[in-house]
Amino acid sequence: MIRISLDQSELTAEQVVELEESWKRFASTVVYCTSLAGSGHPGGSLSCAHILLMFYAATDYDTSDPSDPDRDRLIISNGHISPGAYSALAEAEFFPSEDVIVGFRKVGTPFGGHVETVVPGIEWNTGNLGQGLSAGCASALAAKYNKGSYRTVVLMGDGEQQKGQISEARRFAVKYGLNNLFAVIDYNKLQIGGDITKIMPQNIKEEYISDDWNVIEIEDGHDWHQVFAAFKKMFAREVDDPSKPTMLLANTVMGKGVSFMENDEKYHGSAASLDQLKTALKDIGVEDKVDYYAQLRKNRLPVTKAYNPGPPRFNIDTGEPRVYGPDEKTDNRSGYGNALADLARLNNNKDGKTKIFAMTCDLEGSVKMNAFEKESPEYFIENGIQEHHATTLAGRLSKEGFQVFFSTFGVFGTSETYNQERLNDINHTNLKLVCTHVGLDVGEDGPTHQSIDYLGLIGSLYGFSIFVPADPNQTDRVIRYIADKPGNYFVPMGRSKMSMILDEGGEPFFGKDYQFEPGKGDVIREGKDGCIIAIGPMVHEAMTARKAVEKKGLSIGVINMCSIKPIDAELINRAADTGLVITAEDHNVNTGLGSLVANVLAEKRKAPKFKRLGISEYGGSGKSADLFKAHGIDADSIAATVLDMSK
Amino acid sequence: MIRISLDQSELTAEQVVELEESWKRFASTVVYCTSLAGSGHPGGSLSCAHILLMFYAATDYDTSDPSDPDRDRLIISNGHISPGAYSALAEAEFFPSEDVIVGFRKVGTPFGGHVETVVPGIEWNTGNLGQGLSAGCASALAAKYNKGSYRTVVLMGDGEQQKGQISEARRFAVKYGLNNLFAVIDYNKLQIGGDITKIMPQNIKEEYISDDWNVIEIEDGHDWHQVFAAFKKMFAREVDDPSKPTMLLANTVMGKGVSFMENDEKYHGSAASLDQLKTALKDIGVEDKVDYYAQLRKNRLPVTKAYNPGPPRFNIDTGEPRVYGPDEKTDNRSGYGNALADLARLNNNKDGKTKIFAMTCDLEGSVKMNAFEKESPEYFIENGIQEHHATTLAGRLSKEGFQVFFSTFGVFGTSETYNQERLNDINHTNLKLVCTHVGLDVGEDGPTHQSIDYLGLIGSLYGFSIFVPADPNQTDRVIRYIADKPGNYFVPMGRSKMSMILDEGGEPFFGKDYQFEPGKGDVIREGKDGCIIAIGPMVHEAMTARKAVEKKGLSIGVINMCSIKPIDAELINRAADTGLVITAEDHNVNTGLGSLVANVLAEKRKAPKFKRLGISEYGGSGKSADLFKAHGIDADSIAATVLDMSK
Repeated sequence: MIRISLDQSELTAEQVVELEESWKRFASTVVYCTSLAGSGHPGGSLSCAHILLMFYAATDYDTSDPSDPDRDRLIISNGHISPGAYSALAEAEFFPSEDVIVGFRKVGTPFGGHVETVVPGIEWNTGNLGQGLSAGCASALAAKYNKGSYRTVVLMGDGEQQKGQISEARRFAVKYGLNNLFAVIDYNKLQIGGDITKIMPQNIKEEYISDDWNVIEIEDGHDWHQVFAAFKKMFAREVDDPSKPTMLLANTVMGKGVSFMENDEKYHGSAASLDQLKTALKDIGVEDKVDYYAQLRKNRLPVTKAYNPGPPRFNIDTGEPRVYGPDEKTDNRSGYGNALADLARLNNNKDGKTKIFAMTCDLEGSVKMNAFEKESPEYFIENGIQEHHATTLAGRLSKEGFQVFFSTFGVFGTSETYNQERLNDINHTNLKLVCTHVGLDVGEDGPTHQSIDYLGLIGSLYGFSIFVPADPNQTDRVIRYIADKPGNYFVPMGRSKMSMILDEGGEPFFGKDYQFEPGKGDVIREGKDGCIIAIGPMVHEAMTARKAVEKKGLSIGVINMCSIKPIDAELINRAADTGLVITAEDHNVNTGLGSLVANVLAEKRKAPKFKRLGISEYGGSGKSADLFKAHGIDADSIAATVLDMSK
Repeated sequence: MIRISLDQSELTAEQVVELEESWKRFASTVVYCTSLAGSGHPGGSLSCAHILLMFYAATDYDTSDPSDPDRDRLIISNGHISPGAYSALAEAEFFPSEDVIVGFRKVGTPFGGHVETVVPGIEWNTGNLGQGLSAGCASALAAKYNKGSYRTVVLMGDGEQQKGQISEARRFAVKYGLNNLFAVIDYNKLQIGGDITKIMPQNIKEEYISDDWNVIEIEDGHDWHQVFAAFKKMFAREVDDPSKPTMLLANTVMGKGVSFMENDEKYHGSAASLDQLKTALKDIGVEDKVDYYAQLRKNRLPVTKAYNPGPPRFNIDTGEPRVYGPDEKTDNRSGYGNALADLARLNNNKDGKTKIFAMTCDLEGSVKMNAFEKESPEYFIENGIQEHHATTLAGRLSKEGFQVFFSTFGVFGTSETYNQERLNDINHTNLKLVCTHVGLDVGEDGPTHQSIDYLGLIGSLYGFSIFVPADPNQTDRVIRYIADKPGNYFVPMGRSKMSMILDEGGEPFFGKDYQFEPGKGDVIREGKDGCIIAIGPMVHEAMTARKAVEKKGLSIGVINMCSIKPIDAELINRAADTGLVITAEDHNVNTGLGSLVANVLAEKRKAPKFKRLGISEYGGSGKSADLFKAHGIDADSIAATVLDMSK
């Protein structure tokens, strides 16, 4: 496509002619692909047209390497304008436009209904609104760390500005001086339900200004000269405060260029009929090839295959295990914090090593990131109480060549931000989500702070592995295990201090020679009369219960199912052979460990005596030991259950 | 406690003396309860002291009826200041202050670590920050509808202002002209991690102004005269625009009145030691009764019992069922929309009937609320793309004497807003959450829009019942069933049109005489060789599969498990007796119907041949029929599974 230098003072007449030709191809691809698919979002695609095309005309990228680290990045937060995004990428020669027309919204092609990174050139899967600016913050932040000169542009809708997460991202961008971040708002004044000023009145410009952003406004986002001048100005930082990020408010027209679509909110999310398509093509000023493309769409799939750059190659020294001795008493959080500080020391000040970020939301002390911060202050990121933003930021940063540990309380890292984690997972991020204060073990903070659904929630995300360490030794080993892995990992842990789990010889069970292995449960003790399968603090309770029933002549095994996902189905099978299986978890009894074990039993057609112990109602406020007792998951209750079921 | 009229021009000297005495009792309760519990949040409690006490001195409430409809409402969004909230309520004579001291953060008492409504006078359980202003919007909105003159004050922290949901609530309050809503910000400039300007710089005042709020600022939130004047001014609406809501920014000092706590962020979330407590009491200027109260706390529980006003009494005409005939084809959404419009017609313009709200987030047409809006435009609420705010608003409004139906796509009503639903549930709301576009049935919109975890998510919330209707007839009956019930209900449904499910005689299975019953599955067809348990669109696929295998000589039953929570364990048990159970769901195979059935099988020690069919990876973008096929949950795949397992 036409290349335009932002060093020019203005566009030449020839360039405008070429841009107009480009627009015609773009607009016809938009209307073809939506009408032939019978659905999609042409209206916003057309209102974003000139912005999209100017981005690809005037910025740097490499169509042969969509992941080129130095590329300028365009994050499309209003993911429903996929017809526009794909059509612009076709203009930029990432792939032929016919691919968009034959593949759009068809199973087995990359060209999904909302933008997806399997399409070469798409930076981030979106569709759930309001998350793009946070992702953009991550790319802009990465550029600062990498001394990269690339620019990050985030394209957003105007209705989308209603999402609260955007205000969080705005503040973060200012705090971290992200003057290489540029928000562009497609201000067409319509959302699905109609006029944005009726649906939800909002002073968009004033909001950005109140958060210390620079704002540039153009009256006509379909005037090539104005769009060019705005890009030139914002990239050159000819703004009030060049140290701050900039928002470009582009006044546009929904459906621009297609007579019946202009200013009609119906075309936010509806395609023109095949009859209307002919009018649309006439309006755009191109030949009618409807029959040709309709036939083509029936007969073939796109030549473009799903783009997959593969996992990142991390070069991380995970160090030597720290072993906490049989007489030590500490919490898993400290085990985590110590390991994290080791990782900082071994990698962040060493040439050639992948750098490790640690980030939290105003809970640095509680999640034990202080030692990391001391070791490596520049890689510690404080997001404030902005969990939605922080989660997306962490996800995207983990795709910019860094290993990212994100920690907060379980309730904020899972319940509050589930959809951000979900979108991260769909984006194949490499996030290390380590949540502390899960379970009733959070104690006196009470039900609003008790994360007792973390397994059910993160367990719903296909890409996440889940490991629940039982003591600080295992925590150390799990953290070091995930530290150099790509992909998403979730490591939940409680709050309280504890003794180490010991083997029969009185030595740490997860000692010097222990290596963590996903999908393998730990047989802490064998037993022939039954088995307790437990996680987290319940492993300790189970050990006590085991001793109690031993006195009554029962030999009960204890399994620590640290690897929840993948789970150790074979070991569960073996446990079932004892004839009695009890699961114990500091978690909702219906959606966690017990349920996973039941699934294995049902699938393997095993029918031992079986009981799930866990939490059946919202917890109260009190010491965790008192809460365990009140909910029937303390050692006494477990022992009583074993005895009762062994009758 | 002292009563002060806001009609006075200013406070008298005697009143100030009395307020000071009140403050001393308040402050000593705060430090006693936290220090004796060994945890809690004294710092913010003391910075909010004068605001809390002025509220209870100058507003209207009835300690003998904390739910009095005409009461002024104080929603405490910064729920960690529970010591302050409880101490102020004790001053207001809701209960004796000794109850707070002996009960705070102890299992079996109402006085939890974050404010809870079981404490008389507490309006809303919080602790997860950023939600209170949305709840306040609901109360203020309810006053407008009820022609109530009460005022709603929302107390918030300054760190909390970082949460994006607050910006959503601000815009909503302006859109709906909530000039009876008053936000008070405890501006002590410290959050857990320290100085708010370092943790996350923010222009709080400018943000409110940019959203068209009135702002009043007082220099000293510990000066009784200033606090009085501010309350007087804001309630009298002596502000720039009396038609708009008002925010009072009160400059305060964390830990005010206790020397070592002042301006020290440590005391945001830590109690003074018992030694320090003595200093604190001296600073406050009261007698040292540490030993007395320490003893008292050991020996007794509070006399105050958990407050529970019981469920609301709705008076709602649910109308006559609409029956869709054997030849009709429509979608569940329309079945919902039609029933909802009936409810509006039968109740919203009738005297004495409970009024019904319908609310959505810019998806009115998709969730089929148009007919309701036509029937009853004043009770239709459009929240814009502000799902977090809308969810809290809907929950709180359902506790203000209204029946509230909240609808959006599944992904926005569950994944995006899980934590708001969770806090609603903890608040014992009466929400009717009806989500459309769940499952792969959302089709071409692709993975970001495919809600395939809705059962795992909402299933984690103890208070929610979940019913998944199989066709528009059942939808009609389920909607009418929940329409006059208190409590939380979740009704998910897909997008596509379908034929009605018919009985063997060709008549609608869910016909005129069908009544929905929770906890009862529907045996659509009996079968002796096995049973398919299905939900939603999979019931239709299962019926087709049943026919296909019938030709191969197999008699396979089909159960529709509409009532997912509570589930029909007895029917699953019966199904297991056929020796073959297959579950089919348009949902994550690990966290939905199949898992629930496995739980029942394991618990009942049944071991039929068993297979869960569902979704094992994020879905693609395409027609739902194509997606069902790609994920192996279409009729052909189900039939093939039956045949394979019957070998």
